[in-house]
Amino acid sequence: MFRDVLQNILDQTPGARSVILMGCDGIAVDAHYRDAVPAEETQGVAVEFATVIKELIHTANLLSVGALEEVTVKCDKLVIVLTMLNEDYFVALLFDESGNVGKGRYLLKRDAQALRDALD
Amino acid sequence: MFRDVLQNILDQTPGARSVILMGCDGIAVDAHYRDAVPAEETQGVAVEFATVIKELIHTANLLSVGALEEVTVKCDKLVIVLTMLNEDYFVALLFDESGNVGKGRYLLKRDAQALRDALD
Repeated sequence: MFRDVLQNILDQTPGARSVILMGCDGIAVDAHYRDAVPAEETQGVAVEFATVIKELIHTANLLSVGALEEVTVKCDKLVIVLTMLNEDYFVALLFDESGNVGKGRYLLKRDAQALRDALD
Repeated sequence: MFRDVLQNILDQTPGARSVILMGCDGIAVDAHYRDAVPAEETQGVAVEFATVIKELIHTANLLSVGALEEVTVKCDKLVIVLTMLNEDYFVALLFDESGNVGKGRYLLKRDAQALRDALD
């Protein structure tokens, strides 16, 4: 089940705040949080980024550069890595400024197929 | 001048196709290309991504996560790294699938201040 896969990604990534599996329509499938991270925070961030993901899918189509695979956005106080699972769903990992983004990206890539299988 | 800085980033990044300094309004300031890369390709891609950057700046403001610093978008046939220079300008580096994205990101970060100084 994707529940265990998501929890494992969160547990193994230093500085990860939360992980969320979401539809591109902004509706969450499952989410896991570190202690003291409010659920609304992750949900709110992911919903806003779902809008950006839809825009990027449209842009990639328009430019004929193949399917969108991964997006990393670094802001002053947040880093978010979004990995597409298929054209309708993505998984997003949110980090503190001090988070190990490289490891998180690796784990998302490693476990993307397991999450796809669990979604089917 | 940013001309030399941009050319240097392109030359030193294996698999980089082109580099472009652009306003968030989609108007290019300067661009450099590897041989055989059509100028229109980079221009077209960067203009589309300028729209996404504007959306992301808006999203970052809305979520109070600090200023947007860097965006990496990986598609099947293109990787693009966009580094913000200030709230009005960004530099974008475009790669083949086989490009050394890590090195490109490092060079953009290293030279961002030189590009800011040249813009002022």
